[in-house]
Amino acid sequence: VIPDSRLDALLAEDAPHGDLTTETLGVGPLPGRISYTAREPLVLAGVEEASRLLARTGCTPRVLQASGASLQPGELLLEADGSAAALHLGWKVALHLLEQLSGIATRTRRLVDAASAGAGGRPVPVAATRKGFPGTRDLALLGVRAGGGIAHRLGLSDSLLLFAQHAVFFGPGGLPEAIARLKARQPEQKVVVEVASLAEALAAARAGADVIQVEKLPPAAFAEVAAACHALPTPPRIAATGGVDESNAGAYAAAGADLLVTSAPYAARPAEIRVEITRR
Amino acid sequence: VIPDSRLDALLAEDAPHGDLTTETLGVGPLPGRISYTAREPLVLAGVEEASRLLARTGCTPRVLQASGASLQPGELLLEADGSAAALHLGWKVALHLLEQLSGIATRTRRLVDAASAGAGGRPVPVAATRKGFPGTRDLALLGVRAGGGIAHRLGLSDSLLLFAQHAVFFGPGGLPEAIARLKARQPEQKVVVEVASLAEALAAARAGADVIQVEKLPPAAFAEVAAACHALPTPPRIAATGGVDESNAGAYAAAGADLLVTSAPYAARPAEIRVEITRR
Amino acid sequence: VIPDSRLDALLAEDAPHGDLTTETLGVGPLPGRISYTAREPLVLAGVEEASRLLARTGCTPRVLQASGASLQPGELLLEADGSAAALHLGWKVALHLLEQLSGIATRTRRLVDAASAGAGGRPVPVAATRKGFPGTRDLALLGVRAGGGIAHRLGLSDSLLLFAQHAVFFGPGGLPEAIARLKARQPEQKVVVEVASLAEALAAARAGADVIQVEKLPPAAFAEVAAACHALPTPPRIAATGGVDESNAGAYAAAGADLLVTSAPYAARPAEIRVEITRR
Amino acid sequence: VIPDSRLDALLAEDAPHGDLTTETLGVGPLPGRISYTAREPLVLAGVEEASRLLARTGCTPRVLQASGASLQPGELLLEADGSAAALHLGWKVALHLLEQLSGIATRTRRLVDAASAGAGGRPVPVAATRKGFPGTRDLALLGVRAGGGIAHRLGLSDSLLLFAQHAVFFGPGGLPEAIARLKARQPEQKVVVEVASLAEALAAARAGADVIQVEKLPPAAFAEVAAACHALPTPPRIAATGGVDESNAGAYAAAGADLLVTSAPYAARPAEIRVEITRR
Amino acid sequence: VIPDSRLDALLAEDAPHGDLTTETLGVGPLPGRISYTAREPLVLAGVEEASRLLARTGCTPRVLQASGASLQPGELLLEADGSAAALHLGWKVALHLLEQLSGIATRTRRLVDAASAGAGGRPVPVAATRKGFPGTRDLALLGVRAGGGIAHRLGLSDSLLLFAQHAVFFGPGGLPEAIARLKARQPEQKVVVEVASLAEALAAARAGADVIQVEKLPPAAFAEVAAACHALPTPPRIAATGGVDESNAGAYAAAGADLLVTSAPYAARPAEIRVEITRR
Amino acid sequence: VIPDSRLDALLAEDAPHGDLTTETLGVGPLPGRISYTAREPLVLAGVEEASRLLARTGCTPRVLQASGASLQPGELLLEADGSAAALHLGWKVALHLLEQLSGIATRTRRLVDAASAGAGGRPVPVAATRKGFPGTRDLALLGVRAGGGIAHRLGLSDSLLLFAQHAVFFGPGGLPEAIARLKARQPEQKVVVEVASLAEALAAARAGADVIQVEKLPPAAFAEVAAACHALPTPPRIAATGGVDESNAGAYAAAGADLLVTSAPYAARPAEIRVEITRR
Repeated sequence: VIPDSRLDALLAEDAPHGDLTTETLGVGPLPGRISYTAREPLVLAGVEEASRLLARTGCTPRVLQASGASLQPGELLLEADGSAAALHLGWKVALHLLEQLSGIATRTRRLVDAASAGAGGRPVPVAATRKGFPGTRDLALLGVRAGGGIAHRLGLSDSLLLFAQHAVFFGPGGLPEAIARLKARQPEQKVVVEVASLAEALAAARAGADVIQVEKLPPAAFAEVAAACHALPTPPRIAATGGVDESNAGAYAAAGADLLVTSAPYAARPAEIRVEITRR
Repeated sequence: VIPDSRLDALLAEDAPHGDLTTETLGVGPLPGRISYTAREPLVLAGVEEASRLLARTGCTPRVLQASGASLQPGELLLEADGSAAALHLGWKVALHLLEQLSGIATRTRRLVDAASAGAGGRPVPVAATRKGFPGTRDLALLGVRAGGGIAHRLGLSDSLLLFAQHAVFFGPGGLPEAIARLKARQPEQKVVVEVASLAEALAAARAGADVIQVEKLPPAAFAEVAAACHALPTPPRIAATGGVDESNAGAYAAAGADLLVTSAPYAARPAEIRVEITRR
Repeated sequence: VIPDSRLDALLAEDAPHGDLTTETLGVGPLPGRISYTAREPLVLAGVEEASRLLARTGCTPRVLQASGASLQPGELLLEADGSAAALHLGWKVALHLLEQLSGIATRTRRLVDAASAGAGGRPVPVAATRKGFPGTRDLALLGVRAGGGIAHRLGLSDSLLLFAQHAVFFGPGGLPEAIARLKARQPEQKVVVEVASLAEALAAARAGADVIQVEKLPPAAFAEVAAACHALPTPPRIAATGGVDESNAGAYAAAGADLLVTSAPYAARPAEIRVEITRR
Repeated sequence: VIPDSRLDALLAEDAPHGDLTTETLGVGPLPGRISYTAREPLVLAGVEEASRLLARTGCTPRVLQASGASLQPGELLLEADGSAAALHLGWKVALHLLEQLSGIATRTRRLVDAASAGAGGRPVPVAATRKGFPGTRDLALLGVRAGGGIAHRLGLSDSLLLFAQHAVFFGPGGLPEAIARLKARQPEQKVVVEVASLAEALAAARAGADVIQVEKLPPAAFAEVAAACHALPTPPRIAATGGVDESNAGAYAAAGADLLVTSAPYAARPAEIRVEITRR
Repeated sequence: VIPDSRLDALLAEDAPHGDLTTETLGVGPLPGRISYTAREPLVLAGVEEASRLLARTGCTPRVLQASGASLQPGELLLEADGSAAALHLGWKVALHLLEQLSGIATRTRRLVDAASAGAGGRPVPVAATRKGFPGTRDLALLGVRAGGGIAHRLGLSDSLLLFAQHAVFFGPGGLPEAIARLKARQPEQKVVVEVASLAEALAAARAGADVIQVEKLPPAAFAEVAAACHALPTPPRIAATGGVDESNAGAYAAAGADLLVTSAPYAARPAEIRVEITRR
Repeated sequence: VIPDSRLDALLAEDAPHGDLTTETLGVGPLPGRISYTAREPLVLAGVEEASRLLARTGCTPRVLQASGASLQPGELLLEADGSAAALHLGWKVALHLLEQLSGIATRTRRLVDAASAGAGGRPVPVAATRKGFPGTRDLALLGVRAGGGIAHRLGLSDSLLLFAQHAVFFGPGGLPEAIARLKARQPEQKVVVEVASLAEALAAARAGADVIQVEKLPPAAFAEVAAACHALPTPPRIAATGGVDESNAGAYAAAGADLLVTSAPYAARPAEIRVEITRR
């Protein structure tokens, strides 16, 4: 649940002291209607929050499609009645939120579909990294989830992920001990280890890593890693990461990935949504 | 000036309860160094804020290149010493901020350069719209300015911009009266009017608009509008908007634009910056 | 739109832990009514926010006059029903907000009327400076606008205003270049220049200033400046500032001011509003 | 202690996205100095907070006079070195804070001095009411205390003050029981009762009120109330309130007031402080 | 009144990005009901806030017992209908708030009852100190008041309490002057002095202390102090503090305490409340 | 990292408008020293934050023992020099934070030691639940970690924990499918299932639960569950929860628990820390 104060901050960012144009024109009190319609095929996200934004400016909104819905061009998704002043205050903030989040959702869905197609029915979740615009994780994850994706990790506090940048401190050869320590002390957490080669992957797997996150191997090389790891007595889950996008998601899934870890959703271009304001 | 509490919120978003991996490993107190280096040609932005982020986790940072600098691959831009715990807390938040803002700055610079080339020496400022990710305007504008761009408008409260969505309320034929009203009541503001055709542009100009923002005309058609408006006794400034990016910025400038209004910087992919963490 | 959290902060300032007197008396649950009535002729402001304040304490308010209305002594403007506890929690915060904002509105209206009378029909807007109590701009501007005034500038980020304190840095003789630079780089902004003499005014006007803000000249001297500037081929707007209040607003308007820039509204004494609490 | 985040909010109110003029001019990095000097006799307040404001924009400030000091025209009170950008960011916010708070302090001091003169050596504290601009109590009380005043009450949560608006609920004749109840349940609090006549004052005093706050009686009538109450076996403290200002503070003190309760400090005009910015 | 933003922060603490389990299961939209029932005898507190918490997650709550009510095991106190997603979001936050605050209320009530029994009808209020968990005073005091207690002091800003740690600065023998100074300058405040012996108590009382707070004397020794002080011509109120809990509250009351000052409520174990979630 | 603004809020809670006593006494500027010393054996926590609190009031603190240290009575842990005003502002807030967090740390350590002793060398982590005082999780977890414990889960967003209250919605018999769904969709998360009997435990384990959280079985019955589950081909981790405290932690560990999940740390009484303030 996005708090009211967060929504109010989005509105205040755009109009800290009201809408100068509409107020100066003197048309503020006139009644009107705003409608948001898909201009292209898209997966909708953020519509409940956009609706709340419009309500907070004084409009009466109606949500016509839920987040997660696949829309075709021309489908109406959100509508609101209100004064010209209220409509203009909420118009663009609601629009930009819808466009950004639906862009993320649409791209996530494409990744999910590609992974699913490549996997031949095996579930291969698509997990979004932390690499979005700082300060937007709460909103961006709404888009990811609407698209059918999940969060790779919410941040540093909730999960165990060993990078080479940790090994710098515990030293070469310290991985088995490091993994053992993490597993012993955090028995409710899986241990995820990022690796860059087959050798590293096998080392991590043998040391007990629950998830091996393979960074920037092409699908063919990735397939070798996955096969080798899956053949172990206690096989870890194998995640592909680093440059994973819709062009290669299917290939990674076909190559045996149990999971795709990707920043691609955050780089989505905003979905195109048409706004119409009419007088009532 | 980005307030400390804003920076703390970015850190708390990523690590509300510390770094589980580093703390569980027990390596937190070990001393290290982090360095950020350009991986591609880029225009740097956000480095002062990234430095402050690292300082707030307890590191001692050094800014080696200022925002606005053009960097070549391999150039070191920011470095910090600190404990493994502090370095890991700040690493990614600082990185993502640098990458997003430098991405915006780099794309803005490209637009600025293209406009400048097209304009043949005439200044043609590049103004970024409000169409970024809601809640990021303070940060995104740092990138825009580092790239040499300006803000089109900060939001609804600070400027006068007449859209067709206003005309819905004051009615057809009401534009001259609307412009006159805005000019009479807000003598310190320019009146900007968005138009979609030559006829609309001339009508707005004759009604006294200070700036005509021409929406989505191709450069050739735009040139006609610009020429016609500039030939008026009191010529307005003519801005090109709608789909302006680095591929056409020069053409619009050559076509007579006094200003480019664009959302392209917000759609920039993050700049690529390499991070190295070493032990000291 | 003033956010809910802002209103809650005003209530919390006055009653962080409830109303000790009313609660200790044990009368909190008894039903009552509060009414706010003008005690003197005033221009109302803040009544919508005062109503929301009362609603947030649990009352059911009714707004009986809108912000901007001119009230005569005895006119009822706001009424609310609620428990004694709720009424006492909101009573004074709502009252002080109404009194401060209506005081500002009333004084602004007087300035507006004086300017209008002096101008003989020409529109001479009254613009309020930034010189209010720090931290109150959002609320104070509600009063200014209810009184018919406008904001001179919202702050440093939204407009161009050259002071002598800028010339300190770009040096004597640098004004033409400074103005040219501002105009070239910010084509959507007017350039306002503050001057203290006829010579400075003419210099600024010739250098292309859009608005000349004449500081602390008496109306007669101001008239000379206005006449000289208005006689230029591209006449700038001329604003009077520095000590402008209702005693001289008409004179400045008559002297040719296109705009009055004044801090007088912020120095208004609070409007007098009578409160009655009754039992129901 | 005013928190950093409060000061940052004051700066952000005035410059949410930097200083457009100074940055566009390109003079931001040039070194300068700002100095604040009394332009009239005043009691200084807020100088420590103004100094912190300037430090937060990046200046190096020096506090030359402490809050509470009586300054003569021409006395330097605060100085800071910094870049043109930093100086311009802090200039007006620091100035307006100094002027508002010193205005309050100066007027409070005048009330304190008048009361002291009238009282012939007896201490007669001056207590400021809650009737300031909502949202400014933390800052305004800095001014009151710098002037030698005290807070009447911080708000509703910390003290017991019976108004006629409470009696509406407990009914006529209920005062003795109400006072008894308050005293029994809140033994660490004094019970203050507001009255409008001698009869009410005596009734409240006999019922055990610790402080009688006499509303809007002229000094002569007030003197009667004070004398009658002070003659009781357990005399309460007698406070004068309602229209108390420096013109009558001495008279009320001479009339036997133990305390003056006044909103006059909040209506103070801002103190006049001169700012000079120079190049270094 | 606890502000909405405070309640939202409590929810966000527990679920910054939604409820992963319920959402992943896909049962979020299913309708259900949650009910909160006392599992032991308790004094209820926080139920209005718990209800608001549930409303903010999207449930429709019904408050069945008010704060302050004494409940027997099995009594239903709060119920809400909503989606599985909404119920799970609010469940534990509402529960923990109810349990903590009702724990405080229940223990406070026990202290109040013990004091009352010991006092033989004389009112002996129970005042809670500031010694709770930092950051929880607003909520904890709801529990104290629901249990029939009062706040000893809200904090440092609202009351006068002389500790030995003040005497360190004004020096031995300075107490009479210190008390005189406080009384002269803050005539609306009682002066409370903490003492540790009969001698100190008499010294403080003779110096004019309004309330003597006797620290850590056993009831018998306390009785001596109380008797001696109450025998003075202007007897102060005598408070017992330091280790006061329900085992000795009656004894202190019987020993002549006018007031008990205690941190015991904050150390209360949470009240036991049973939650049932059912499908509808 | 606890943000500065969080610490400032703790100070403002206690002293929104300064320290009335110290300021009225006029001793504020006198120099002094404060020292915090253990009064009983304790595990220290929050000392870094307490030090920062004192620094923010203007003191110069020195941390003499780090969080996590075991202190004996009389050991000095924190000291600060500052003015009487600064020392009094920070004294109690820092103290209460130290006492609450060290109380949590001390009790956590006891649980950790008891578990370790019972486990005969096998690591049995102690995980603290979410059942603390709402709004204190950031601080309380500092105490848990200083005591050697871990967080069971940070909240609802970061982990998968199936309660009977979820089964209400997916229905009897739905557990295997529910677990399968969670595992398929969240491959980086362990699935934790709470059970109340051996049968439920085996059902959950066979359905693939990674961790079985056994609620409120006595150690003997728990041992049966643990043995049965550990004998499975893919044995889950078995956690004991519900009433786990230092009296039975060893027994549960001896009974085969892989993990203890407990709210006991939150119910710790505050550690006893002595404060001394002296003049310098």
